[in-house]
Amino acid sequence: MSDRKEFRDLADPERARETVASLNLSTGSERIPLEDARGRVLAERVDATLDVPGFDRAAMDGYAVRAPDTYGADDSPVALPVVGSVHAGETPGLSLDAGEAAEISTGAVMPEGADAVVIVERTEEVAGSEVDGDSPSDRGVRVETAVTPGENVMLAGADIAAGERALGPGTRLTPREIGLLSALGVDEVPVRAEPRVAIVSTGDELVRPGGDLDHRSGQIYDVNSYAVASAVEEAGGDPVVYPHVGDDMDAMERTLVEAAADCDLVLTSGSTSASAVDVVYRVIEERGELLLHGVAIKPGKPMLVGRIGGEDGPADANPDSGAAYVGLPGYPVSALTIFRTFVAPAIRSAVGLPEPQTARVDGRMAVSERSEEGRRRLLAVGLVEDESGETLVYPVDKGSGATTTLTAADGVVDVPADTNRLAAGDSVTVDLFSPDVRPPTLLGVGEDDPALSGLLDRLDRPRYLARGSRGGLRQLRDGLPDVAVVAGPFDAEQEDVTDAVDLGGWTREWGLVVPDGNPESVDGLGDLVDRDLAFVNRGSESGLRTSLSNALAELAEERGVERRDVTDAISGFDLAARAFESPARSVAAGDADAGLGLRATASKLGLDFVPVGVQSVRVLANPDRTEKASVRELSDCLDDLSDVLDGLDGFESE
Amino acid sequence: MSDRKEFRDLADPERARETVASLNLSTGSERIPLEDARGRVLAERVDATLDVPGFDRAAMDGYAVRAPDTYGADDSPVALPVVGSVHAGETPGLSLDAGEAAEISTGAVMPEGADAVVIVERTEEVAGSEVDGDSPSDRGVRVETAVTPGENVMLAGADIAAGERALGPGTRLTPREIGLLSALGVDEVPVRAEPRVAIVSTGDELVRPGGDLDHRSGQIYDVNSYAVASAVEEAGGDPVVYPHVGDDMDAMERTLVEAAADCDLVLTSGSTSASAVDVVYRVIEERGELLLHGVAIKPGKPMLVGRIGGEDGPADANPDSGAAYVGLPGYPVSALTIFRTFVAPAIRSAVGLPEPQTARVDGRMAVSERSEEGRRRLLAVGLVEDESGETLVYPVDKGSGATTTLTAADGVVDVPADTNRLAAGDSVTVDLFSPDVRPPTLLGVGEDDPALSGLLDRLDRPRYLARGSRGGLRQLRDGLPDVAVVAGPFDAEQEDVTDAVDLGGWTREWGLVVPDGNPESVDGLGDLVDRDLAFVNRGSESGLRTSLSNALAELAEERGVERRDVTDAISGFDLAARAFESPARSVAAGDADAGLGLRATASKLGLDFVPVGVQSVRVLANPDRTEKASVRELSDCLDDLSDVLDGLDGFESE
Repeated sequence: MSDRKEFRDLADPERARETVASLNLSTGSERIPLEDARGRVLAERVDATLDVPGFDRAAMDGYAVRAPDTYGADDSPVALPVVGSVHAGETPGLSLDAGEAAEISTGAVMPEGADAVVIVERTEEVAGSEVDGDSPSDRGVRVETAVTPGENVMLAGADIAAGERALGPGTRLTPREIGLLSALGVDEVPVRAEPRVAIVSTGDELVRPGGDLDHRSGQIYDVNSYAVASAVEEAGGDPVVYPHVGDDMDAMERTLVEAAADCDLVLTSGSTSASAVDVVYRVIEERGELLLHGVAIKPGKPMLVGRIGGEDGPADANPDSGAAYVGLPGYPVSALTIFRTFVAPAIRSAVGLPEPQTARVDGRMAVSERSEEGRRRLLAVGLVEDESGETLVYPVDKGSGATTTLTAADGVVDVPADTNRLAAGDSVTVDLFSPDVRPPTLLGVGEDDPALSGLLDRLDRPRYLARGSRGGLRQLRDGLPDVAVVAGPFDAEQEDVTDAVDLGGWTREWGLVVPDGNPESVDGLGDLVDRDLAFVNRGSESGLRTSLSNALAELAEERGVERRDVTDAISGFDLAARAFESPARSVAAGDADAGLGLRATASKLGLDFVPVGVQSVRVLANPDRTEKASVRELSDCLDDLSDVLDGLDGFESE
Repeated sequence: MSDRKEFRDLADPERARETVASLNLSTGSERIPLEDARGRVLAERVDATLDVPGFDRAAMDGYAVRAPDTYGADDSPVALPVVGSVHAGETPGLSLDAGEAAEISTGAVMPEGADAVVIVERTEEVAGSEVDGDSPSDRGVRVETAVTPGENVMLAGADIAAGERALGPGTRLTPREIGLLSALGVDEVPVRAEPRVAIVSTGDELVRPGGDLDHRSGQIYDVNSYAVASAVEEAGGDPVVYPHVGDDMDAMERTLVEAAADCDLVLTSGSTSASAVDVVYRVIEERGELLLHGVAIKPGKPMLVGRIGGEDGPADANPDSGAAYVGLPGYPVSALTIFRTFVAPAIRSAVGLPEPQTARVDGRMAVSERSEEGRRRLLAVGLVEDESGETLVYPVDKGSGATTTLTAADGVVDVPADTNRLAAGDSVTVDLFSPDVRPPTLLGVGEDDPALSGLLDRLDRPRYLARGSRGGLRQLRDGLPDVAVVAGPFDAEQEDVTDAVDLGGWTREWGLVVPDGNPESVDGLGDLVDRDLAFVNRGSESGLRTSLSNALAELAEERGVERRDVTDAISGFDLAARAFESPARSVAAGDADAGLGLRATASKLGLDFVPVGVQSVRVLANPDRTEKASVRELSDCLDDLSDVLDGLDGFESE
């Protein structure tokens, strides 16, 4: 296929960035109400058209006076007649002659003749008769301090005066700028318009979240529509999610042309797979222009950049009628990486938002990682603090197709194209996904368990990687996690974790999960061996699998046969599901007669349960991390598990 | 007044924070559509209820095979019959026997019997007849590489499996988490509810922005309603702006009780002024409970904290029916400082948002600053980078009443209660208002000028402090700004700025701005002296004022009188407006017969103009900063002023 060949001539990332930038997503300005303006960017300068305040204004509650009348009052208080009051929001009904005072409240207009305010705390009300000299008033005030002209008065225009440059173009509006605009009486502000960004996921297999899914026909939920839409919003764009389209040329063309007419940028995702790419190619070729195909970066290589014309025809005939176009890969990690690296900066630039401060963390690789040479790589990594407060960095690579690659990672390490290996211990710099990212306080690795899930809810920002008991032990040995969670028997010496600290644990009842009512009358493991029952197992990393293997070894011994004779006789013994509920769900779905699992899972899913044994689940701390705050907190939580175990059938404190 | 005395027993800031925290604004959880969930915080754990993917899935385009059939293909390619195709989103219509291949696209269900995918790039289509051995197919594929079992296949549940803990409570939802929730088919998420926050500005003098203002009766625009509302939004709350209320007890009570019934937190602003505080006191006393009055912090001392009961009576009788209450000071700087320091953390805690990373910058004080002892102070400061890249810190204190105090500042220096002076050169740490704050690239100080405003629009993030030509010269001498802008004559030796570098400038025609048609037939400065005309001047910091003074000195000399005789004869000579348009606006408003100003201003406002002279405006660079990028950029802009001066009557390049 000729189009595939073009991937061999990949653009370097800098050229890809320039190509996307050349699309120019700026869409001019719009006027919006001040109350909606937070976070937006001024499109033009705002000058003050009035003085703020518009009049000389009392800055404190007290008495308006002529300053010279108070001179000497610190030593010898002066009593002045009070000729009236001025409140905020009213026209002064008086003017002040020498030797007079007027009560005044904060914000009130200074009466004519007055040039200072004595704060009320430095005065005392007196009768008019106590006032020195002839008093025309029946009220008086004793002033106990001298003031200078202008004291406690905010002069007209002192905040900002007519004609002054208030805010420049490109200013991002925070509550502070909104305050200034309010003071100027502005209730509508000219801001940079948000580009409208169409999001079109492609693929016949996609189902919108919330819809019904048919696994058998390969349906999956559409991950990119909402994920990319929220990323567009975060970058300052206005996302418009279109219904997803399949490989039908007419439907694709209709949707893309409609989106291009209505939006400033059209993003497709999944459009770079072989099945969709031909269709997208044809639409872009007939209706626009392809500027770039493929970028030398991992993940994200098969990115497309171009323009799609409006209804009037090809973009080059009438460039203004078209929209910019970027084809994102279908895999979520690739799609979000390409979006973050190339598209988000173009949207921010269009709306005038600065590039966010990249928060960086220095650390050292906890394990080694190989990279393909010749392609720059943005390696998703997680962070954990070791005992000395140093940051350990570990790759989180479940593949570009895995959404958990992103939620289990804190940022990326930018691995240059000519680096083919990062060794354990190498110093690396991690670009956090955003300055808001808080690396987890606790890193755990090991067995999947419902009690553990509840336990983790009590901690602040824990991260748990469900890699099975074997995975937990292996990584604990390598010194990466704070804790490992191990279910079932293990040999600490053989696993080389003798110095791990056992923080506590619980037991759980395991066995065979069978359909409600146990229609096959399954009685125990022997039935799996002797009868033609469809079984679903767990993987060899799982502690459940270890306990099952041990039990089958015993069974073999009882029967005087080889262990392999027993396991070979079980239909589905090698069919290993990844998580503790999966076998039970296969049973619930009618796909299997029995699944390896927990009594608690059978209860939860309304299935029957054939008990086989009870296994211990232990939380083992990395010996160097026992003093880490989160490990101590976890240890405290383990002291009283009653709440966590409540409602979990077959679970007991140990 | 007894309540004022309570201010003498100020709470320390820590107690104030605890008191606000004790109000507990948490309002439970709500379920919202996934598409609205960005930035929200999960209220409860989300576990996977299905395996993702739900089936073994081809991870690449290519051919599904049994891995052992490809062993050795790297050395000697293997040709296999192609028994059919499987596309994404369809149920495989075939199963694979040993020695067979099936075309497969990314995302498709692996057919039964297949355990690996050979990527299309490592294959070649061949005719069925070229296939080794007996081929039941008319299509074939030559496989050029060996694959291992599972290669290029994403196993069911490999992303996340049923029962796994997907996201913990308290997780903030970014595009990455929204991707994972999409993959799980979740279209509605349980998130912490946003507290509803009522905002009630108090003061008879307030007018909502956009409304008409009557300066004479002391009206001002309501700054706090929109500024605080946007700050509430920023902290994660849901602001509800109520109409402002005056000092009327009934109206205040009605509004506060209504707000308390409808919202979780009621904020008033301006409620701490003497006129409003009595009323607020009475409402809180009758309908709730006052917990704190006054905090030892500047700005913001007169903060109130309490509860307001619902319609059922006092809060203590029925605590659940009430709302939390915080009275913010009326001055915008104080209101936003109190909000940021005490209220925002409580809102964030209620919605589960982490405290934002405080971005900090170390610098040294450029000037000294005195503080009142005994009260901790959050001193608003601006930043400028000096020639060596060091950060200079200068106080921006136009008073708590000035909205420009906040827009001209980048953050605050936290000055402890026992520090009464920061000396020039002292090291200080600045807490930026947010990590997004970018200190200005250029700091200018000096004369206000319309051409300068246009010039600044061409720079990225400049800051200009309109302090008049005298202010500019003084600060340039002290080494603070990058440039000073000086209008009118000055003596560089006397001003001690002989080493300043003149980057360029322009001239502007100045004189008397008079009403349209010049009804008083003003002919020149002599008329101001000889006739009873109401004049509005500029302040003595202004270069316009310098040129006027010089012209009046000449006039006095011509007339053989003292300069003072001339100025004393001008009615309003001491009436100094703060900015260059203000005198003209007084003329336009009918408040004056003539104002000191520019021809450009007269043209802009549709007034007449009596020319007196032409003055030069010079941009002087700090001699140590001429190599700073922004100064060079400004210097380049000064080389061609034609666009900037275009449309400004009486302005010329120089």
